[in-house]
Amino acid sequence: MLSDTQVNTPLIGLTGGRQSLDTPALLLDLGALMRNIERMAAFAKARGVGLRPHVKTHKSVEIARRQVAAGAIGVSCVTLGEAEVMVKAGIPDVLITSPAVTPSKIARVVKLARLAGPGGMMVVVDDPRNAADLAAATLGLPHPLEVLVDYGAGYNRTGAATEAQVLELARRIAAEPRLKLRGLQAYAGNLQHIVDREQRSAAAAGLRETVARIVAQARQEGIHFEIVTGAGTGTHDLDAQRDAFTELQAGSYVFMDAEYTQVLGAPGQPSPFEVSLFVQTAVVSANAADWVTVDGGTKCFATDAGVPLVARGAEPASRYAFFGDEHGKLLFAGARPALGERVEFVTPHCDPTVNLHDAYHVVDGDTLVAIWPVDARGRH
Amino acid sequence: MLSDTQVNTPLIGLTGGRQSLDTPALLLDLGALMRNIERMAAFAKARGVGLRPHVKTHKSVEIARRQVAAGAIGVSCVTLGEAEVMVKAGIPDVLITSPAVTPSKIARVVKLARLAGPGGMMVVVDDPRNAADLAAATLGLPHPLEVLVDYGAGYNRTGAATEAQVLELARRIAAEPRLKLRGLQAYAGNLQHIVDREQRSAAAAGLRETVARIVAQARQEGIHFEIVTGAGTGTHDLDAQRDAFTELQAGSYVFMDAEYTQVLGAPGQPSPFEVSLFVQTAVVSANAADWVTVDGGTKCFATDAGVPLVARGAEPASRYAFFGDEHGKLLFAGARPALGERVEFVTPHCDPTVNLHDAYHVVDGDTLVAIWPVDARGRH
Repeated sequence: MLSDTQVNTPLIGLTGGRQSLDTPALLLDLGALMRNIERMAAFAKARGVGLRPHVKTHKSVEIARRQVAAGAIGVSCVTLGEAEVMVKAGIPDVLITSPAVTPSKIARVVKLARLAGPGGMMVVVDDPRNAADLAAATLGLPHPLEVLVDYGAGYNRTGAATEAQVLELARRIAAEPRLKLRGLQAYAGNLQHIVDREQRSAAAAGLRETVARIVAQARQEGIHFEIVTGAGTGTHDLDAQRDAFTELQAGSYVFMDAEYTQVLGAPGQPSPFEVSLFVQTAVVSANAADWVTVDGGTKCFATDAGVPLVARGAEPASRYAFFGDEHGKLLFAGARPALGERVEFVTPHCDPTVNLHDAYHVVDGDTLVAIWPVDARGRH
Repeated sequence: MLSDTQVNTPLIGLTGGRQSLDTPALLLDLGALMRNIERMAAFAKARGVGLRPHVKTHKSVEIARRQVAAGAIGVSCVTLGEAEVMVKAGIPDVLITSPAVTPSKIARVVKLARLAGPGGMMVVVDDPRNAADLAAATLGLPHPLEVLVDYGAGYNRTGAATEAQVLELARRIAAEPRLKLRGLQAYAGNLQHIVDREQRSAAAAGLRETVARIVAQARQEGIHFEIVTGAGTGTHDLDAQRDAFTELQAGSYVFMDAEYTQVLGAPGQPSPFEVSLFVQTAVVSANAADWVTVDGGTKCFATDAGVPLVARGAEPASRYAFFGDEHGKLLFAGARPALGERVEFVTPHCDPTVNLHDAYHVVDGDTLVAIWPVDARGRH
């Protein structure tokens, strides 16, 4: 929901609107966003793999629509709430990347599958009992529920732990007429943020070998994984190999953040994606000798990945420190920012930061061009 | 906004409703909440000080109403968005504890003051230019804008840095007919979480001495601080001294969390307040040897104050570790929790955790008795 006070609709389209926002405001640079969307789409196309961008990053129908228009085959959602928002908005081919287990979630999955129709929605499964529960709940669904076997990929956040368990689960699903086995998920969240490219590359190669082995073994038994899905922004270029993955789940590339800029940018070789996401704050107190206080704290920036980095409005050498839930300490370099001055930051970690905000303030330079809701915010 | 899928209204009033929630769910134990509200109200009354509980903790009209009904003189809000929600809901005597600086925020403050009427709303000021800007914006306001001088209290998140600056600002405001000087704010956020009680006590005593000196000096000049406001849950019992503070701004006592339970509970002397706030998760994957995965991660628990603690549904010796944005790793002790089992946690830090959720699921034992929106969620 948009706060009635946050949505300064009279400012939309006005040059300078960026300087009149109520702070703190989540800012999205439309040009950078669209270049990121187009670059990843072109990359996947050139490599002959599909792109199923992860909605958990942006939780936005407007952005998902632009990704699909640029060539994405569908979207990935980690929560059922995100998937419900996307299916209801008409986004095609939605994959839910985490198991739905409790009775109420299973009932919602089946309801959503009916709404989405054949080919419209899939969910991962990593447990035989869950597969049986899903099958039992499909009563009245006019088509089989489409599922992927989830492999833990060594990370084991979700997913079957061993190759043998993956195959056993695939056999059960293949034998269950109320379920349709579409493919395999192998997502290794722990590989995405390995900064050293050689280490990341070696780890990703190891996973691809395992995945290829599972797929070959299944094929020998007559089980076809039409879809093999995985990879994030950190390994997208390594994993875009048709013989391992048929599609990529990368999400953060649309926005980038401090963390991924470090991972994807090697010395002399900048990241192919630009930072498009910022948080704009204002200086609300300027009485201390070495810092000013800005109106963005832990309710505005995720705290799991370091501190926000100054992007605009203060000397780049200025440093941010968390200063409570609603404030930040800007240890300024150079001239002291004045009371009321706007300071914009690159977010440390984009996904959980977006989840703190109700809306994107979409800007083209100094012009506020749109306000997009974070549609699935809080849809855990 | 409540997610239509989160609000299982048919369950309200049903025994066992607590076990049928869509997870992750923010849980509020109604009995513990009410006991906390009543205990703090009785404490403040016994000490002869006012209680102006901080809304930043709960952002909830329902909870603010219960605090006022129990004797609170009004509420504190850190953001203008929170204050707008409270004034519009009819909550009396709202103090905004952080300066409003940008032109749009100042315009909103004046608009809200008109709506609240005399005695209905106050805002802190820590800068002469901001005082002048506020005065200039009051055109058409039928009563003076009511303000408090904000003193940095050695923490200097907001507030005038020195006693001399406080007095100079008070003089300016007293001389400005469009502003009405109501009092002084001296809030030291850095003292609230000092675990050692003697250290905390000494630091709080030092601040109270300074505050008393400022008030006495002002009185000599004919300036009366009718209100002296400050103190949080961590120093509420130390600062409840009428010769220093006329009122307390404590907020977290309504919920408590892992952090404050440690601060307020001494060996052999448990905290006077109970934990009333929990997050309920469900086990969504159970394939790893040493852990199961629950469906609550960094979009569900604030990450600025350690990890969630097991409260219910698993052996107390089980440990939680963050496992990405939507998942937690439960390193279980004793029997392995089964797929779908509910595990409830005490939050590490209540305020920013509440801000991640759209609604409280209010429970009385196993019965879901109400769903209350987090009205001011995201109202930065």
